[in-house]
Amino acid sequence: MDKLPRNERISVLQRILCESPGRVFTLGYFTEMFNCAKSSVSEDIDIIRSSLEKTGAGTIETISGASGGVRYVPLMSGDALLKLAGRLSAELSKKERILPGGYLYMLDAIYDPGTVSEVSKAFAGYFHDKPVDYVITVETKGIPLAFMTAAYLSKPLVIARHNIEATDGASVNINYVSGSLERIQTMVLPMRSLKRGSWLLFIDDFMKGGGTLKGILELAREFDCQVTGAGVLIETYMPERKLPVECFSLLTLYGVDGAAGITDIRPSQRLMAKER
Amino acid sequence: MDKLPRNERISVLQRILCESPGRVFTLGYFTEMFNCAKSSVSEDIDIIRSSLEKTGAGTIETISGASGGVRYVPLMSGDALLKLAGRLSAELSKKERILPGGYLYMLDAIYDPGTVSEVSKAFAGYFHDKPVDYVITVETKGIPLAFMTAAYLSKPLVIARHNIEATDGASVNINYVSGSLERIQTMVLPMRSLKRGSWLLFIDDFMKGGGTLKGILELAREFDCQVTGAGVLIETYMPERKLPVECFSLLTLYGVDGAAGITDIRPSQRLMAKER
Repeated sequence: MDKLPRNERISVLQRILCESPGRVFTLGYFTEMFNCAKSSVSEDIDIIRSSLEKTGAGTIETISGASGGVRYVPLMSGDALLKLAGRLSAELSKKERILPGGYLYMLDAIYDPGTVSEVSKAFAGYFHDKPVDYVITVETKGIPLAFMTAAYLSKPLVIARHNIEATDGASVNINYVSGSLERIQTMVLPMRSLKRGSWLLFIDDFMKGGGTLKGILELAREFDCQVTGAGVLIETYMPERKLPVECFSLLTLYGVDGAAGITDIRPSQRLMAKER
Repeated sequence: MDKLPRNERISVLQRILCESPGRVFTLGYFTEMFNCAKSSVSEDIDIIRSSLEKTGAGTIETISGASGGVRYVPLMSGDALLKLAGRLSAELSKKERILPGGYLYMLDAIYDPGTVSEVSKAFAGYFHDKPVDYVITVETKGIPLAFMTAAYLSKPLVIARHNIEATDGASVNINYVSGSLERIQTMVLPMRSLKRGSWLLFIDDFMKGGGTLKGILELAREFDCQVTGAGVLIETYMPERKLPVECFSLLTLYGVDGAAGITDIRPSQRLMAKER
């Protein structure tokens, strides 16, 4: 590549770091790409780090050692988190979203790239300093959130399915009780999908009884894996759950009054309680 | 926000454009954010556009008029496309991927954030100047690719499912013959998920007989929608398909010889034939 002026180099660097958040790049990768000195790339990185920190968008971490380098860690300020939770509460409590049975229609929100990207950034920021080797979800509605969280953490995504597929190879099945739909379901995961001894981060759109998470915990045991925690967009206020892992939710659903057309959904207590 | 030096402003601008590709931002949005003159932001945008074009990563489009502004259009050079297809061909033709029945294990590839991001960028680049109101897929394996394509095009994602869910509201069902698994399946889409008169882009991981695409075409008719085209990671060389819409594939699968442990998969002809 022809030598770029510093302005353009910063633009390219920021784009590459942004398009692979969490991925470690050696400085050598960039000095070769730009055909410039290590000190120049270091200064560029300092400028990018400063711009990220001033805008509360995260930071650039420097990893030392043989496999060292730099990586973009996207974070969300406490303010941005509250603003996001407030905006989503308002959106999801709209009267026209209430379905028969007290369910909420929210597919448009949980499949919308902008919303998914922001919520996933909140999940990734919350768990970024915890051990995560894989992000895991159960098909279908949580997949976009789980995928983007995996992308922000630069970790592979694993999807448990409800039925065995010919394209899976040998697989492990467990049965679990789905809390939100109150029925027994099957969870299947291909044998090849997880390395033994890994840490899993469970991501989903909705948590009621915690049955799906309990299924994931059981599945993890079968693979000699451990679960770091769970990130969900919405948890219900009731029932009380005793979960053996940390659960981070953005919103809490207190109730849906179908007759009155009122949905009580609010930013989760944890967000209100502390600055992150 | 305090005034940022130009280098940091470029870094922030590039990050914001990158994190919402396809989204139109007014210059006013940025002048307010940075508390600086429109001419400064314009110059910053020119620098970013130049850096994108020099690195073959896309461009910044300027949209004029009342709802005008700028947006990042990610593109892939013909070279980058061929390199990606070559790398994936090599990866997916590894002997240990062959499963009983001549299927290929490729979940790790189609759920990997880095691979998904690159393949989706290829899809988005190919269809970026065609009419697309929604990106649509059928659960489950194509969802990450479809989601990222939707993200690059800044359009909503819609997922057809195999079973009706209580959280869907009223929905439309159709039956179709799945080509790759050779069985009759059901496709369900909530009534609320599409606006009538829209254009749909179908994205999936694999196409054999084209049965799923035919199902999508039928579903589209029920919603008075039209299908712009299809983007798939892999299409099989046979059977010959007569599809009424344009289909873009990255790889073509010529055959799997389970006994010999050989998979013949190559970059699709179209990629070889012309520079994009």
